[in-house]
Amino acid sequence: MPDLSDAAKRILVGRPVRSERLGHTLLPKRIALPVFASDALSSVAYAPDEILLTLSLAGLASYTISPWVGLAVVIVMLTVVASYRQTVRAYPSGGGDYEVATTNLGPRAGLTVASALQVDYVLTVAVSVSSGSHYLATVLPAARDHEAIIAIGLVALIALINLRGVRESGTGFAFPVYLFMAGMGVMALVGGIQWATGTLGIAESAQFDVLAEPGYEEGLMGLAGGFLVLRAFSSGAAALTGVEAISNGVPAFRKPKSKNAATTLLLLGLIGATMLMTVIGLARATGVRFVQDPHLQLAMNGQPVPEGYEQDPVIGQIAQTVFAGFPPMFYLVTASTGLILLLAANTAFNGFPTLASILSKDGYLPRQLYTRGDRLAFSNGIIILALAAIALIWVFDAEVTRLIQLYIVGVFVAFTLGQLGMIKHWNERLPSVVAARERGAMKRSRAINAFGFALTALVLAVVLITKFTHGAWIAIGLMGLLFAVMVFIHRHYQHVADELEIEDVAAARALPSRVHALVLVSKVHKPTMRALSYARATRPSTLQAITVAVDRDAAEQVRRDWDAAEVPLPLTVLDSPYRDLTRPVLEYVKSIRRESPRDLVVVYVPEYVVGHWWERVLHNQSALRLKSRLLYTPGVVMASVPWQLASSARSLVNPDDPGERLGDLPAPGMVRRGE
Amino acid sequence: MPDLSDAAKRILVGRPVRSERLGHTLLPKRIALPVFASDALSSVAYAPDEILLTLSLAGLASYTISPWVGLAVVIVMLTVVASYRQTVRAYPSGGGDYEVATTNLGPRAGLTVASALQVDYVLTVAVSVSSGSHYLATVLPAARDHEAIIAIGLVALIALINLRGVRESGTGFAFPVYLFMAGMGVMALVGGIQWATGTLGIAESAQFDVLAEPGYEEGLMGLAGGFLVLRAFSSGAAALTGVEAISNGVPAFRKPKSKNAATTLLLLGLIGATMLMTVIGLARATGVRFVQDPHLQLAMNGQPVPEGYEQDPVIGQIAQTVFAGFPPMFYLVTASTGLILLLAANTAFNGFPTLASILSKDGYLPRQLYTRGDRLAFSNGIIILALAAIALIWVFDAEVTRLIQLYIVGVFVAFTLGQLGMIKHWNERLPSVVAARERGAMKRSRAINAFGFALTALVLAVVLITKFTHGAWIAIGLMGLLFAVMVFIHRHYQHVADELEIEDVAAARALPSRVHALVLVSKVHKPTMRALSYARATRPSTLQAITVAVDRDAAEQVRRDWDAAEVPLPLTVLDSPYRDLTRPVLEYVKSIRRESPRDLVVVYVPEYVVGHWWERVLHNQSALRLKSRLLYTPGVVMASVPWQLASSARSLVNPDDPGERLGDLPAPGMVRRGE
Repeated sequence: MPDLSDAAKRILVGRPVRSERLGHTLLPKRIALPVFASDALSSVAYAPDEILLTLSLAGLASYTISPWVGLAVVIVMLTVVASYRQTVRAYPSGGGDYEVATTNLGPRAGLTVASALQVDYVLTVAVSVSSGSHYLATVLPAARDHEAIIAIGLVALIALINLRGVRESGTGFAFPVYLFMAGMGVMALVGGIQWATGTLGIAESAQFDVLAEPGYEEGLMGLAGGFLVLRAFSSGAAALTGVEAISNGVPAFRKPKSKNAATTLLLLGLIGATMLMTVIGLARATGVRFVQDPHLQLAMNGQPVPEGYEQDPVIGQIAQTVFAGFPPMFYLVTASTGLILLLAANTAFNGFPTLASILSKDGYLPRQLYTRGDRLAFSNGIIILALAAIALIWVFDAEVTRLIQLYIVGVFVAFTLGQLGMIKHWNERLPSVVAARERGAMKRSRAINAFGFALTALVLAVVLITKFTHGAWIAIGLMGLLFAVMVFIHRHYQHVADELEIEDVAAARALPSRVHALVLVSKVHKPTMRALSYARATRPSTLQAITVAVDRDAAEQVRRDWDAAEVPLPLTVLDSPYRDLTRPVLEYVKSIRRESPRDLVVVYVPEYVVGHWWERVLHNQSALRLKSRLLYTPGVVMASVPWQLASSARSLVNPDDPGERLGDLPAPGMVRRGE
Repeated sequence: MPDLSDAAKRILVGRPVRSERLGHTLLPKRIALPVFASDALSSVAYAPDEILLTLSLAGLASYTISPWVGLAVVIVMLTVVASYRQTVRAYPSGGGDYEVATTNLGPRAGLTVASALQVDYVLTVAVSVSSGSHYLATVLPAARDHEAIIAIGLVALIALINLRGVRESGTGFAFPVYLFMAGMGVMALVGGIQWATGTLGIAESAQFDVLAEPGYEEGLMGLAGGFLVLRAFSSGAAALTGVEAISNGVPAFRKPKSKNAATTLLLLGLIGATMLMTVIGLARATGVRFVQDPHLQLAMNGQPVPEGYEQDPVIGQIAQTVFAGFPPMFYLVTASTGLILLLAANTAFNGFPTLASILSKDGYLPRQLYTRGDRLAFSNGIIILALAAIALIWVFDAEVTRLIQLYIVGVFVAFTLGQLGMIKHWNERLPSVVAARERGAMKRSRAINAFGFALTALVLAVVLITKFTHGAWIAIGLMGLLFAVMVFIHRHYQHVADELEIEDVAAARALPSRVHALVLVSKVHKPTMRALSYARATRPSTLQAITVAVDRDAAEQVRRDWDAAEVPLPLTVLDSPYRDLTRPVLEYVKSIRRESPRDLVVVYVPEYVVGHWWERVLHNQSALRLKSRLLYTPGVVMASVPWQLASSARSLVNPDDPGERLGDLPAPGMVRRGE
């Protein structure tokens, strides 16, 4: 019942407001930066934590290596940035890695990238919101131990905001992102000065010793230790997600689009790298401890931590130490970090339906996800994304450490295939270019992409090896499933298209010999009379009025009314021994078709149209069922003759109601696509 | 999405089996008795318990009055039986109290009876199944403390069995009901002999003292005590439910129908009364204690009962005492009691949808509940009843004592109004009868009904006064709600009928001046060509093929294909600035209507029909949405031109599939209605 769900949706997401279409306001760099930054920068809120947490398994001494792990992540990050600067120049259309891989490596590669990205969008939401709810618990102790339910509530809230279609504005992103940057900048500056002047305090957790887990008695020495460092690096590589977002958003930039996008990308990379190193550096300097389970791994003088000890995120711990004498700054840094995490989740709510729409256009996902201007298409995407993210949060109890094991596999699949596609792109272009300068530039680009490919492939291998059994297999399984579903859908559409293809134009254009019109009469009232008039207006070869005697008394009454209305046409009464409306009509239609198989039967069904959902519950069900059955009978056309009751004027789907022009609303993510 | 729910239903309730229609096998008395007995007799499983439980509040001494309370219930029961013997003679059509009240007292009274009966059907299910799960716990200790969830599971099971449409047979009822009667008979006989010979043991609970609650220190003396006796009587009156069932089932009896029904009714009353008195008598003789909370109310030598003490139902306690040396009989009595309670619940699953169907026919409930031959109608009723009963069981935690407070209000409303209607019935008939003998019989009948009315009205007043604050208000509230909903629905149907009535036959028969045919083209494939052929076959005044340029490339492709197919008709491309399919078509249709308001526009929509539910998810949505919008535009006919894809042959709703002929299955309860 689409109408009931319409009504429910109305209650949940409110009456759609008619708003002017978003103008083609292209983004200057100062606005584009915050629009695309939240996803990439927000990972600084959990990536350092995961590095420290993973290293902590080998005991306190292993923390000394954390800056080097951070540095490795930064190197990969800057390499990826350099690679994507080539992509945005070569593919300014905003197709991103899916387009690059499909164009250069074929549809299977494109589909692999698409599956990977879709799964990663879900994980972006799950990880960001879970992390955000932990930040919330840092400033709001009442939220502790309720992180999962809070995270689920936040996902639902973000989904609802996106379903309502709040008008997105580039400047709306600017404030929280710049606030976050400013807060982090002040923290870096104040912390740096304190460190230089020797006045930097130590974190509350610095008093604890970190106990090595069994198997890591030798610290980071040996095979297990080396593996652990690689795992720490893999987790830290979560800082790279979101870098690819700009490559999907080139059309949204002001001209020269590609150049501005490339510059913004570089800026983003530098800011992200700086932030990451700042957090890791300050964590070292203040002696922050961050472990999986404080009660098992932390100790003071051989005693475990006190019962009520709660471990805050690393940025929270640093802010508490640096701004020990000035709590407002602590709250500002923590709150803006939480906020940017939610913005990052919101990014996925823009990216997921957009990619789904592209995949739908290419025939890999149901058509309903396609139509760009249709909000419903995006609504479906939003709901699917929210449900998937909620499921993950629920299963993993909003634990960032466990969710992060599933994360970034997808992003690195996209990175690797995207860069491989770029290499092929340059290889194909090079032979046709003769100008030495242009060739030099292309070769430079190719070299960058080749290095990017090599490095991201290496990281992908490291991520797969170190995380596979920890949860990456789940992500890979989901990607495989999605891939299979998309291939299946594509095949189905192809199969249907083949079946519907016209082989013989002449046969397809052959006219039926005669037209038999049947008018279904359930009562003698205005809708029936209208159906009869309309049927007569089409001048069929034969015209019959039929009624089904489901109830003997009722059929008798219809016959009497028919005579009273003086209709110049006999009424045929079909017997219904089983008191069923549908079958006698079906049998009758089939008997006509049997006699003259080349004729056409047009069944006129009078319907009256009501306005409220509850009225729809009270009416018209038998006509609907009959129609759905008749669809399966060849050679039959069903003509619905509607009669609009007075109440239909206030219908939810009344096209005259300006509030109903759903197509007018800007779809989420439009601002990023430059539409 | 009706197809998805179809698929889900298929999984739950199985593929409908084609079965021959139930023959007109009318019931002889020996079969009719068990068919109608389960509801009326099963109450002996909880009515004595509730009498003892209520009396126990005033301490052990009050148990001495229990036979007198039982006797009062028996008197009312026999009065009601005598009254209904008049009803079945006067109204052999099986309409029951609803018909009697509607015919004699007007539709409002009829509606009151109907609301009351519907609410009581729900309570029959809730009380019987709750009681049944307590009997189960008596023989199956593992079930203890899980009574509510077991009861909910049993309701779901009974509902499922009814949804699957197990072929009902009168003889199917005979075995368990006669088994129950036999078990109770043997228990009465053996217990009676033991009592007469002084060898009757005492119940396990007889060792306990029953402590009076505060306020009842004087026992049953005083106002509070008197009120308590009335309350005990009200609860015991639950034994009367089900007596009215025969009045709805007269057509199922063999001829002479009325006489046989009256005889069966008398038999039923006598057996019920005997059973009730037997149970109460044996409970007295064996010293059974039955209280609300054994841990608060029972004591032995001033000490409370042991921790693990569990209180069994009265029949269970008696069977344990009488058959102390022979456990199989104890199990048989308990198990057959549990079984008959489930049969009683099943009765409501027959009665509720039948009454709903009658109310629907009279325009008080949605039409979908009407069509008798259509299983779907009964399915809806079954599901509604099951959900309502489950809700009650859940809210009241399957506690019979609390549920019984809501019970029987409805039945006594029906009794009272039914008898009042009967008095009026005789009053209206009397003046036209002259034969002295006939007049005498009528006057005798009227006297019986008058006495029945007076007594049931008195009992209704007692029930209302003693139970109102204990929960009867909930039942009354539900009846009021149901009454209001039914009045509302009736008004709505009336309103629509008025709106659709033909005032001016000539105007209604006026033909539209011209017919404009539009064929919607989304792609150039077989379905489109078929739609075009069919449209041409109807020889419209004008014919246009239109396509909406939702996507520029796609529209260009359609135009090229159109030219390639050499269709001798230009293709009109409608612009869609908002990439929306629906609005351009609507605007175009409206523009035609504006130019020539008396013309008719027929929109031919090619549709292809698929077989699997998942295929339906992948196709056709935009056409559906367009159709639902066009319905609201006056002067438009929507002609669906279906193209059956190969997969449609295995569709769920394929009319050629013999398994699908839903109308063939006997509906639940048919055996009771003599259909």
